[in-house]
Amino acid sequence: MELTPPLLEYLGRAAYVQLTLFENLSRAVANAPTVAAKAAIGRSAELSITKHRALADEIVKTGSSAAEAMDPYTAEVDDFQRVTNGGDWYENVVTCYVTSGFLDDFFIRLAAGLSADPARRIAEIYSSGSGEDVLVEQLASAIAASPRLASRLAMWGRRLVGDTMLVARASLHYTDNHKSDEARIEPVFTELIAAHTRRMDSLGLTA
Amino acid sequence: MELTPPLLEYLGRAAYVQLTLFENLSRAVANAPTVAAKAAIGRSAELSITKHRALADEIVKTGSSAAEAMDPYTAEVDDFQRVTNGGDWYENVVTCYVTSGFLDDFFIRLAAGLSADPARRIAEIYSSGSGEDVLVEQLASAIAASPRLASRLAMWGRRLVGDTMLVARASLHYTDNHKSDEARIEPVFTELIAAHTRRMDSLGLTA
Repeated sequence: MELTPPLLEYLGRAAYVQLTLFENLSRAVANAPTVAAKAAIGRSAELSITKHRALADEIVKTGSSAAEAMDPYTAEVDDFQRVTNGGDWYENVVTCYVTSGFLDDFFIRLAAGLSADPARRIAEIYSSGSGEDVLVEQLASAIAASPRLASRLAMWGRRLVGDTMLVARASLHYTDNHKSDEARIEPVFTELIAAHTRRMDSLGLTA
Repeated sequence: MELTPPLLEYLGRAAYVQLTLFENLSRAVANAPTVAAKAAIGRSAELSITKHRALADEIVKTGSSAAEAMDPYTAEVDDFQRVTNGGDWYENVVTCYVTSGFLDDFFIRLAAGLSADPARRIAEIYSSGSGEDVLVEQLASAIAASPRLASRLAMWGRRLVGDTMLVARASLHYTDNHKSDEARIEPVFTELIAAHTRRMDSLGLTA
Protein backbone atom coordinates (compact mmCIF):
# COMPACT_ATOMS: atom_id res chain seq x y z
CA MET A 1 0.00 0.00 0.00
CA GLU A 2 1.34 3.45 -0.79
CA LEU A 3 0.18 4.65 2.62
CA THR A 4 2.37 2.21 4.53
CA PRO A 5 4.35 4.00 7.27
CA PRO A 6 8.14 3.60 7.72
CA LEU A 7 9.20 0.16 9.01
CA LEU A 8 9.80 1.05 12.66
CA GLU A 9 6.50 2.86 12.92
CA TYR A 10 4.71 -0.06 11.30
CA LEU A 11 6.36 -2.53 13.67
CA GLY A 12 5.77 -0.45 16.80
CA ARG A 13 2.05 -0.25 16.11
CA ALA A 14 1.65 -3.82 14.87
CA ALA A 15 3.54 -5.21 17.89
CA TYR A 16 1.54 -3.20 20.41
CA VAL A 17 -1.77 -4.00 18.72
CA GLN A 18 -0.84 -7.68 18.84
CA LEU A 19 0.09 -7.44 22.53
CA THR A 20 -3.33 -5.90 23.17
CA LEU A 21 -5.10 -8.63 21.20
CA PHE A 22 -3.15 -11.14 23.29
CA GLU A 23 -4.27 -9.46 26.52
CA ASN A 24 -7.89 -9.72 25.40
CA LEU A 25 -7.47 -13.39 24.55
CA SER A 26 -5.76 -14.17 27.82
CA ARG A 27 -8.61 -12.49 29.69
CA ALA A 28 -11.00 -14.74 27.74
CA VAL A 29 -8.89 -17.71 28.88
CA ALA A 30 -9.01 -16.61 32.52
CA ASN A 31 -12.79 -16.04 32.48
CA ALA A 32 -13.79 -19.01 30.33
CA PRO A 33 -16.91 -20.79 31.63
CA THR A 34 -15.47 -24.30 31.14
CA VAL A 35 -12.05 -25.86 31.28
CA ALA A 36 -12.54 -26.98 27.66
CA ALA A 37 -13.07 -23.35 26.58
CA LYS A 38 -10.07 -22.29 28.66
CA ALA A 39 -7.79 -24.84 27.00
CA ALA A 40 -9.11 -24.10 23.50
CA ILE A 41 -8.74 -20.33 23.73
CA GLY A 42 -5.32 -20.83 25.29
CA ARG A 43 -4.24 -21.98 21.84
CA SER A 44 -5.36 -18.68 20.25
CA ALA A 45 -3.60 -16.76 23.02
CA GLU A 46 -0.41 -18.68 22.29
CA LEU A 47 -0.57 -17.86 18.57
CA SER A 48 -1.14 -14.21 19.41
CA ILE A 49 1.72 -13.79 21.91
CA THR A 50 4.05 -15.64 19.54
CA LYS A 51 3.15 -13.16 16.78
CA HIS A 52 3.73 -10.27 19.16
CA ARG A 53 7.16 -11.58 20.13
CA ALA A 54 8.15 -12.17 16.51
CA LEU A 55 7.17 -8.57 15.68
CA ALA A 56 9.13 -7.37 18.73
CA ASP A 57 12.13 -9.38 17.47
CA GLU A 58 11.83 -7.52 14.14
CA ILE A 59 11.99 -4.24 16.04
CA VAL A 60 15.18 -5.37 17.78
CA LYS A 61 16.65 -6.23 14.35
CA THR A 62 16.30 -2.56 13.37
CA GLY A 63 18.47 -1.64 16.38
CA SER A 64 15.61 -0.20 18.44
CA SER A 65 14.04 -1.55 21.63
CA ALA A 66 10.56 -3.03 21.42
CA ALA A 67 9.30 -0.91 24.32
CA GLU A 68 10.54 2.34 22.76
CA ALA A 69 9.09 1.50 19.36
CA MET A 70 5.67 0.66 20.83
CA ASP A 71 5.53 3.55 23.27
CA PRO A 72 4.14 6.26 20.94
CA TYR A 73 1.06 4.13 20.17
CA THR A 74 0.09 2.86 23.59
CA ALA A 75 -2.39 5.61 24.50
CA GLU A 76 -4.36 5.21 21.29
CA VAL A 77 -4.36 1.40 21.35
CA ASP A 78 -5.22 1.32 25.08
CA ASP A 79 -8.25 3.50 24.26
CA PHE A 80 -9.23 1.04 21.56
CA GLN A 81 -8.93 -1.78 24.10
CA ARG A 82 -11.12 0.09 26.57
CA VAL A 83 -13.95 0.83 24.13
CA THR A 84 -13.95 -2.69 22.71
CA ASN A 85 -14.11 -4.29 26.17
CA GLY A 86 -17.38 -6.24 26.23
CA GLY A 87 -19.98 -6.58 28.96
CA ASP A 88 -19.52 -10.33 29.41
CA TRP A 89 -17.40 -13.26 28.32
CA TYR A 90 -19.29 -13.82 25.04
CA GLU A 91 -18.93 -10.19 23.97
CA ASN A 92 -15.24 -10.36 24.81
CA VAL A 93 -14.73 -13.48 22.71
CA VAL A 94 -16.52 -11.71 19.84
CA THR A 95 -14.13 -8.79 20.39
CA CYS A 96 -11.14 -11.14 20.13
CA TYR A 97 -12.53 -12.79 17.02
CA VAL A 98 -13.61 -9.65 15.17
CA THR A 99 -10.75 -7.32 16.06
CA SER A 100 -7.94 -9.91 15.66
CA GLY A 101 -9.37 -10.98 12.32
CA PHE A 102 -9.73 -7.43 11.03
CA LEU A 103 -6.43 -6.09 12.33
CA ASP A 104 -4.33 -9.08 11.31
CA ASP A 105 -5.79 -8.77 7.80
CA PHE A 106 -5.07 -5.05 7.85
CA PHE A 107 -1.45 -5.35 8.99
CA ILE A 108 -0.84 -8.08 6.42
CA ARG A 109 -2.07 -5.72 3.67
CA LEU A 110 -0.09 -2.82 5.07
CA ALA A 111 3.14 -4.88 5.20
CA ALA A 112 3.06 -5.22 1.40
CA GLY A 113 4.16 -1.58 1.20
CA LEU A 114 7.36 -2.20 3.18
CA SER A 115 10.66 -3.09 1.53
CA ALA A 116 10.95 -6.68 0.31
CA ASP A 117 12.93 -8.31 3.11
CA PRO A 118 10.96 -7.25 6.18
CA ALA A 119 7.74 -7.53 4.14
CA ARG A 120 8.46 -11.20 3.52
CA ARG A 121 9.34 -11.93 7.14
CA ILE A 122 6.27 -10.09 8.43
CA ALA A 123 4.02 -12.00 6.03
CA GLU A 124 5.45 -15.17 7.51
CA ILE A 125 4.78 -13.99 11.07
CA TYR A 126 1.11 -13.41 10.27
CA SER A 127 0.78 -16.64 8.30
CA SER A 128 0.43 -18.64 11.55
CA GLY A 129 -3.21 -17.53 11.71
CA SER A 130 -5.01 -16.48 14.86
CA GLY A 131 -6.87 -19.61 15.92
CA GLU A 132 -10.14 -18.13 14.68
CA ASP A 133 -11.76 -21.56 14.33
CA VAL A 134 -11.40 -22.09 18.07
CA LEU A 135 -13.21 -18.83 18.82
CA VAL A 136 -15.97 -19.64 16.31
CA GLU A 137 -16.43 -23.04 17.92
CA GLN A 138 -16.82 -21.51 21.37
CA LEU A 139 -19.36 -18.97 20.16
CA ALA A 140 -21.40 -20.75 17.51
CA SER A 141 -23.16 -23.30 19.71
CA ALA A 142 -24.10 -20.70 22.33
CA ILE A 143 -25.41 -18.40 19.59
CA ALA A 144 -27.43 -21.16 17.94
CA ALA A 145 -29.01 -22.01 21.30
CA SER A 146 -30.07 -18.47 22.23
CA PRO A 147 -31.69 -15.98 19.83
CA ARG A 148 -31.36 -13.30 22.47
CA LEU A 149 -27.59 -13.82 22.75
CA ALA A 150 -27.42 -13.92 18.94
CA SER A 151 -29.00 -10.50 18.54
CA ARG A 152 -26.92 -8.99 21.33
CA LEU A 153 -23.67 -10.31 19.79
CA ALA A 154 -24.70 -9.21 16.29
CA MET A 155 -25.12 -5.67 17.62
CA TRP A 156 -21.83 -5.87 19.47
CA GLY A 157 -20.06 -7.07 16.32
CA ARG A 158 -21.38 -4.04 14.41
CA ARG A 159 -20.20 -1.65 17.11
CA LEU A 160 -16.70 -3.12 17.02
CA VAL A 161 -16.12 -2.42 13.34
CA GLY A 162 -16.09 1.35 13.74
CA ASP A 163 -13.53 1.38 16.54
CA THR A 164 -11.39 -1.22 14.80
CA MET A 165 -11.36 0.78 11.55
CA LEU A 166 -10.26 3.87 13.49
CA VAL A 167 -7.17 2.06 14.83
CA ALA A 168 -6.40 0.79 11.35
CA ARG A 169 -6.82 4.25 9.79
CA ALA A 170 -4.57 5.83 12.43
CA SER A 171 -1.80 3.49 11.23
CA LEU A 172 -1.77 4.94 7.70
CA HIS A 173 0.64 7.57 6.44
CA TYR A 174 -1.51 10.10 4.64
CA THR A 175 -0.11 12.36 1.95
CA ASP A 176 -1.19 15.92 1.23
CA ASN A 177 -3.59 14.67 -1.39
CA HIS A 178 -6.56 13.65 0.76
CA LYS A 179 -8.71 12.69 -2.21
CA SER A 180 -6.19 10.34 -3.75
CA ASP A 181 -5.45 8.84 -0.31
CA GLU A 182 -9.11 8.03 0.17
CA ALA A 183 -9.28 6.50 -3.29
CA ARG A 184 -6.43 4.21 -2.33
CA ILE A 185 -7.83 3.28 1.07
CA GLU A 186 -11.36 2.59 -0.04
CA PRO A 187 -10.86 -0.70 -1.87
CA VAL A 188 -8.73 -2.04 0.99
CA PHE A 189 -11.40 -1.27 3.56
CA THR A 190 -14.08 -2.68 1.29
CA GLU A 191 -12.19 -5.98 1.31
CA LEU A 192 -11.59 -5.88 5.06
CA ILE A 193 -15.29 -5.28 5.67
CA ALA A 194 -16.20 -8.14 3.33
CA ALA A 195 -13.95 -10.38 5.42
CA HIS A 196 -15.66 -9.08 8.55
CA THR A 197 -19.05 -9.99 7.07
CA ARG A 198 -17.82 -13.52 6.36
CA ARG A 199 -16.56 -13.72 9.94
CA MET A 200 -19.98 -12.78 11.33
CA ASP A 201 -21.59 -15.26 8.90
CA SER A 202 -19.46 -18.03 10.41
CA LEU A 203 -21.12 -17.25 13.73
CA GLY A 204 -24.55 -17.36 12.15
CA LEU A 205 -24.89 -13.60 12.65
CA THR A 206 -25.73 -10.79 10.27
CA ALA A 207 -22.96 -8.22 10.03
CA MET B 1 9.91 -40.19 42.79
CA GLU B 2 8.05 -43.26 44.10
CA LEU B 3 5.05 -41.08 44.82
CA THR B 4 4.58 -40.02 41.21
CA PRO B 5 0.94 -40.47 40.12
CA PRO B 6 -0.08 -42.30 36.92
CA LEU B 7 0.78 -40.44 33.70
CA LEU B 8 -2.64 -39.02 32.88
CA GLU B 9 -3.14 -37.75 36.40
CA TYR B 10 0.31 -36.18 36.36
CA LEU B 11 -0.37 -34.50 33.02
CA GLY B 12 -3.84 -33.27 33.94
CA ARG B 13 -2.54 -31.51 37.02
CA ALA B 14 0.68 -30.25 35.46
CA ALA B 15 -1.19 -28.85 32.44
CA TYR B 16 -3.83 -27.09 34.52
CA VAL B 17 -1.26 -25.70 36.95
CA GLN B 18 0.68 -24.36 33.97
CA LEU B 19 -2.47 -22.78 32.49
CA THR B 20 -3.05 -21.07 35.84
CA LEU B 21 0.55 -19.83 36.00
CA PHE B 22 0.03 -18.48 32.48
CA GLU B 23 -3.15 -16.67 33.53
CA ASN B 24 -1.27 -14.99 36.38
CA LEU B 25 1.53 -13.94 34.03
CA SER B 26 -0.87 -12.60 31.43
CA ARG B 27 -2.62 -10.57 34.14
CA ALA B 28 0.80 -9.15 35.05
CA VAL B 29 1.27 -8.25 31.36
CA ALA B 30 -2.12 -6.51 31.21
CA ASN B 31 -1.52 -4.51 34.40
CA ALA B 32 2.16 -3.71 33.89
CA PRO B 33 3.04 -0.11 34.81
CA THR B 34 5.22 0.47 31.72
CA VAL B 35 5.23 -0.77 28.16
CA ALA B 36 8.75 -2.11 28.76
CA ALA B 37 7.48 -4.27 31.64
CA LYS B 38 4.53 -5.37 29.51
CA ALA B 39 6.77 -6.49 26.66
CA ALA B 40 9.27 -8.19 28.98
CA ILE B 41 6.71 -10.18 30.95
CA GLY B 42 5.00 -11.06 27.67
CA ARG B 43 8.02 -13.26 27.03
CA SER B 44 7.47 -15.19 30.29
CA ALA B 45 3.78 -15.55 29.44
CA GLU B 46 4.73 -16.99 26.07
CA LEU B 47 7.06 -19.58 27.63
CA SER B 48 4.33 -20.54 30.07
CA ILE B 49 1.49 -20.99 27.55
CA THR B 50 3.84 -22.93 25.27
CA LYS B 51 4.61 -25.30 28.15
CA HIS B 52 0.90 -25.66 28.89
CA ARG B 53 0.14 -26.51 25.28
CA ALA B 54 2.98 -29.03 25.07
CA LEU B 55 1.64 -30.75 28.21
CA ALA B 56 -1.87 -30.69 26.69
CA ASP B 57 -0.43 -32.29 23.54
CA GLU B 58 1.01 -35.06 25.74
CA ILE B 59 -2.48 -35.65 27.14
CA VAL B 60 -3.88 -35.97 23.61
CA LYS B 61 -1.14 -38.53 22.85
CA THR B 62 -2.57 -40.76 25.60
CA GLY B 63 -5.92 -40.70 23.78
CA SER B 64 -7.65 -38.42 26.28
CA SER B 65 -8.80 -34.84 25.82
CA ALA B 66 -6.89 -32.08 27.60
CA ALA B 67 -10.05 -30.62 29.09
CA GLU B 68 -11.19 -33.95 30.54
CA ALA B 69 -7.78 -34.72 31.97
CA MET B 70 -7.52 -31.31 33.65
CA ASP B 71 -11.09 -31.19 34.90
CA PRO B 72 -10.66 -33.12 38.19
CA TYR B 73 -8.02 -30.63 39.41
CA THR B 74 -9.57 -27.30 38.49
CA ALA B 75 -11.33 -26.62 41.81
CA GLU B 76 -8.18 -27.18 43.87
CA VAL B 77 -5.91 -25.21 41.52
CA ASP B 78 -8.43 -22.38 41.18
CA ASP B 79 -8.42 -22.12 44.98
CA PHE B 80 -4.65 -21.91 44.91
CA GLN B 81 -4.89 -19.14 42.31
CA ARG B 82 -7.35 -17.24 44.48
CA VAL B 83 -5.31 -17.36 47.67
CA THR B 84 -2.07 -16.45 45.87
CA ASN B 85 -3.64 -13.44 44.16
CA GLY B 86 -1.70 -10.42 45.41
CA GLY B 87 -2.89 -7.00 46.46
CA ASP B 88 -1.05 -5.12 43.72
CA TRP B 89 1.05 -5.62 40.61
CA TYR B 90 4.31 -6.19 42.51
CA GLU B 91 2.82 -8.87 44.73
CA ASN B 92 1.38 -10.54 41.65
CA VAL B 93 4.74 -10.57 39.89
CA VAL B 94 6.26 -12.12 43.03
CA THR B 95 3.46 -14.71 42.89
CA CYS B 96 4.37 -15.51 39.27
CA TYR B 97 8.06 -15.74 40.09
CA VAL B 98 7.78 -17.78 43.28
CA THR B 99 4.98 -20.16 42.32
CA SER B 100 6.19 -20.83 38.74
CA GLY B 101 9.69 -21.45 40.00
CA PHE B 102 8.59 -23.79 42.76
CA LEU B 103 5.96 -25.72 40.78
CA ASP B 104 8.05 -26.11 37.63
CA ASP B 105 10.87 -27.52 39.81
CA PHE B 106 8.37 -29.80 41.53
CA PHE B 107 6.80 -31.18 38.35
CA ILE B 108 10.27 -31.75 36.86
CA ARG B 109 11.18 -33.84 39.92
CA LEU B 110 7.86 -35.66 39.85
CA ALA B 111 8.23 -36.53 36.14
CA ALA B 112 11.31 -38.62 36.94
CA GLY B 113 8.94 -41.24 38.39
CA LEU B 114 7.05 -41.68 35.11
CA SER B 115 8.03 -44.26 32.50
CA ALA B 116 11.07 -43.37 30.42
CA ASP B 117 9.49 -42.06 27.22
CA PRO B 118 7.01 -39.52 28.57
CA ALA B 119 9.50 -38.64 31.34
CA ARG B 120 12.06 -37.62 28.71
CA ARG B 121 9.57 -35.58 26.69
CA ILE B 122 8.23 -33.84 29.79
CA ALA B 123 11.76 -32.97 30.93
CA GLU B 124 12.24 -31.36 27.54
CA ILE B 125 9.01 -29.35 27.87
CA TYR B 126 10.15 -27.89 31.18
CA SER B 127 13.69 -27.26 29.95
CA SER B 128 12.56 -24.07 28.15
CA GLY B 129 12.64 -22.32 31.55
CA SER B 130 10.09 -19.81 32.72
CA GLY B 131 11.65 -16.45 31.94
CA GLU B 132 12.49 -15.94 35.62
CA ASP B 133 15.27 -13.45 34.84
CA VAL B 134 12.69 -11.12 33.31
CA LEU B 135 10.59 -11.19 36.46
CA VAL B 136 13.62 -10.61 38.68
CA GLU B 137 14.62 -7.65 36.55
CA GLN B 138 11.17 -6.08 36.90
CA LEU B 139 11.15 -6.52 40.66
CA ALA B 140 14.74 -6.00 41.77
CA SER B 141 15.08 -2.29 40.99
CA ALA B 142 11.74 -1.43 42.61
CA ILE B 143 12.71 -3.45 45.71
CA ALA B 144 16.14 -1.83 45.95
CA ALA B 145 14.51 1.62 45.77
CA SER B 146 11.90 1.05 48.48
CA PRO B 147 12.60 -0.66 51.83
CA ARG B 148 8.87 -0.62 52.55
CA LEU B 149 8.08 -2.50 49.33
CA ALA B 150 10.96 -4.87 50.10
CA SER B 151 9.56 -5.86 53.48
CA ARG B 152 6.02 -6.20 52.13
CA LEU B 153 7.19 -8.46 49.28
CA ALA B 154 9.41 -10.51 51.61
CA MET B 155 6.33 -11.22 53.74
CA TRP B 156 4.26 -12.02 50.67
CA GLY B 157 6.93 -14.42 49.41
CA ARG B 158 6.82 -16.28 52.74
CA ARG B 159 3.06 -16.57 52.62
CA LEU B 160 3.16 -18.03 49.12
CA VAL B 161 5.36 -20.99 50.04
CA GLY B 162 2.73 -22.66 52.21
CA ASP B 163 -0.03 -22.53 49.60
CA THR B 164 2.35 -23.60 46.85
CA MET B 165 3.55 -26.59 48.86
CA LEU B 166 -0.07 -27.64 49.42
CA VAL B 167 -0.72 -27.80 45.67
CA ALA B 168 2.49 -29.77 45.21
CA ARG B 169 1.63 -32.20 48.02
CA ALA B 170 -1.85 -32.77 46.63
CA SER B 171 -0.20 -34.02 43.42
CA LEU B 172 1.54 -36.92 45.18
CA HIS B 173 0.28 -40.48 45.30
CA TYR B 174 0.62 -41.54 48.90
CA THR B 175 0.93 -45.17 49.92
CA ASP B 176 -0.47 -46.75 53.08
CA ASN B 177 2.87 -46.23 54.80
CA HIS B 178 2.61 -42.63 55.85
CA LYS B 179 5.95 -42.59 57.62
CA SER B 180 7.94 -43.89 54.68
CA ASP B 181 6.08 -41.50 52.35
CA GLU B 182 7.11 -38.55 54.48
CA ALA B 183 10.69 -39.80 54.54
CA ARG B 184 10.67 -39.80 50.75
CA ILE B 185 9.03 -36.41 50.40
CA GLU B 186 11.15 -34.59 52.91
CA PRO B 187 14.44 -34.34 50.98
CA VAL B 188 12.57 -33.23 47.86
CA PHE B 189 10.81 -30.42 49.66
CA THR B 190 14.05 -29.46 51.39
CA GLU B 191 15.58 -28.95 47.94
CA LEU B 192 12.56 -27.07 46.62
CA ILE B 193 12.65 -24.73 49.60
CA ALA B 194 16.38 -24.17 49.14
CA ALA B 195 15.64 -23.15 45.55
CA HIS B 196 12.91 -20.84 46.84
CA THR B 197 15.42 -19.22 49.21
CA ARG B 198 17.80 -18.62 46.29
CA ARG B 199 14.94 -17.10 44.34
CA MET B 200 14.15 -14.65 47.13
CA ASP B 201 17.89 -13.88 47.44
CA SER B 202 17.93 -12.88 43.77
CA LEU B 203 15.36 -10.24 44.63
CA GLY B 204 17.47 -9.03 47.55
CA LEU B 205 14.85 -10.41 49.98
CA THR B 206 15.14 -12.77 52.93
CA ALA B 207 13.06 -15.89 52.49
